[in-house]
Amino acid sequence: MARYLAITGGVGGAKLALGLAHVLTPDEVLFVVNTGDDFEHLGLAISPDLDTLTYTLADLNNTELGWGRRDETWQCLDTLAELGGESWFRLGDRDLALHFHRTQLLRAGASLSQVTAEIARRLGIRHGLAPMSDQPIRTIVHTAKGALNFQHYFVRDRCAPAVTGFHFDGIPSARLSPVVADWLTDCQGVIICPSNPFVSVDPVLAVPGMREALARLPVVAVSPIVDGMAIKGPTAKMMAELKVPATAAQVASHYGELLTGFVLDEADAAVHDTLPVRTVVTRTVMLTLQDRIDLARVTVEFLQSLAH
Amino acid sequence: MARYLAITGGVGGAKLALGLAHVLTPDEVLFVVNTGDDFEHLGLAISPDLDTLTYTLADLNNTELGWGRRDETWQCLDTLAELGGESWFRLGDRDLALHFHRTQLLRAGASLSQVTAEIARRLGIRHGLAPMSDQPIRTIVHTAKGALNFQHYFVRDRCAPAVTGFHFDGIPSARLSPVVADWLTDCQGVIICPSNPFVSVDPVLAVPGMREALARLPVVAVSPIVDGMAIKGPTAKMMAELKVPATAAQVASHYGELLTGFVLDEADAAVHDTLPVRTVVTRTVMLTLQDRIDLARVTVEFLQSLAH
Repeated sequence: MARYLAITGGVGGAKLALGLAHVLTPDEVLFVVNTGDDFEHLGLAISPDLDTLTYTLADLNNTELGWGRRDETWQCLDTLAELGGESWFRLGDRDLALHFHRTQLLRAGASLSQVTAEIARRLGIRHGLAPMSDQPIRTIVHTAKGALNFQHYFVRDRCAPAVTGFHFDGIPSARLSPVVADWLTDCQGVIICPSNPFVSVDPVLAVPGMREALARLPVVAVSPIVDGMAIKGPTAKMMAELKVPATAAQVASHYGELLTGFVLDEADAAVHDTLPVRTVVTRTVMLTLQDRIDLARVTVEFLQSLAH
Repeated sequence: MARYLAITGGVGGAKLALGLAHVLTPDEVLFVVNTGDDFEHLGLAISPDLDTLTYTLADLNNTELGWGRRDETWQCLDTLAELGGESWFRLGDRDLALHFHRTQLLRAGASLSQVTAEIARRLGIRHGLAPMSDQPIRTIVHTAKGALNFQHYFVRDRCAPAVTGFHFDGIPSARLSPVVADWLTDCQGVIICPSNPFVSVDPVLAVPGMREALARLPVVAVSPIVDGMAIKGPTAKMMAELKVPATAAQVASHYGELLTGFVLDEADAAVHDTLPVRTVVTRTVMLTLQDRIDLARVTVEFLQSLAH
């Protein structure tokens, strides 16, 4: 039995992660999640990408909003707005409970890896998921308006400021989550989910030890760019602002030497032969659960073919 | 125009406070509120008595529950319970917003007096209310099961452990709220609302400077004990455990020299002539708003008569 590591950020990556959880058993895949988006807000330790993956794998994700928890209400935040408090970061009443619980467990001395596992267990998630690191790493977005904390850029300012670069605060003193480090001692391949390369995947790759571990393994990435557009989020906008082509080929180029294989959408089939890595062309736009499962199966089979 | 100070704890005292707010203008009364019940929970600064008074004066109190905020929902706490988190202290979704806001303002450097005034302003409260102190004072309940933080005794353990005494942590380094100290420089009388003498009023009296200020003024207390029973809360149970009679006369005796006058319920009319202070007998059980207004009027007129 082979064991794979799947690297993911939030919503876009979580779609493929759900597919992978249908295709691979808990013994066959570990999800390692970006925590560069994490921040402290209203005194709560918030981990947006971890929560998105947790809610998705627990079948509790809010499919109407595309983020957050199902059956959500907004009494607390609406009341906070009435009181003149900070309400720009939309925290639903039920979602708040997760942040309270995590914050309390962290304060009691648990690591983020332990808290993540405990919450997953409570919500009946069978697959393993872990933060990239137990040490705080914070994505700073350099923009024409100055350096912004990620959530200020992403949520408060709605990705409006033009991006000039990124910095991951805390990297020098960060270590890989013990759960991830342990998994990597016996791992046969890596899947990079279709998340934003700059702010979802790069923070994971920046954790000391991660690139070195991946260099020894076949690594397949699924393009988050289809026909020059991002399926979800600001990836294409960022690429334009960074003055690189907003193309799938550019994403492959961004990952560079790390990449063994690349999964392209049918809309980008023309690029197939021009890339310096092996590619598979398939449907990558995931609208239904079956789409997620199909893409997961193609990706895993591709990775398996590269591993031999 | 005379100015009065009204000392109050939570629910019982807030009923008379609402009546006083109908009878006296904002220039005529300041409410000083017990903060011995305050505690930090889930990382939030919670001030139960201040909130009860705030909600009551803003006409936002939950009359069905008898505590908390109107039109409340419990999504966050119910979800926290599902996650295995701490849910013994019932915080409604809308109530949570107040605690978030207060906690944020305190962290930003505001004093509890300033925060209380800001929240009251936001909620359209015209009368002044202030915590007894800006320094943290914490009521410790000594019981047969050991020393308990007040909310652990009161909410978590439902007042079950037998009380042996009380201690107010933080008193030596506490000062009166500047709002209260300022009001006392030009104040003609004091009303002690029908709150628990041991855990609602005594903490206020314990703040350095309060007893000295009150010694110069006529002070009228409204009995929280009617016919040997507490209208609300554990007062009578505490008195029995402290091995003193659970009577209105005992409450008057508890306040001792501080008291100029005492308001007794009709059920206790027989005690009238036996007390060492002047008394008024009236209906003190407040079921309707009119009851609150009537008792407030009787109390204020009694205080005015003593002031001359």
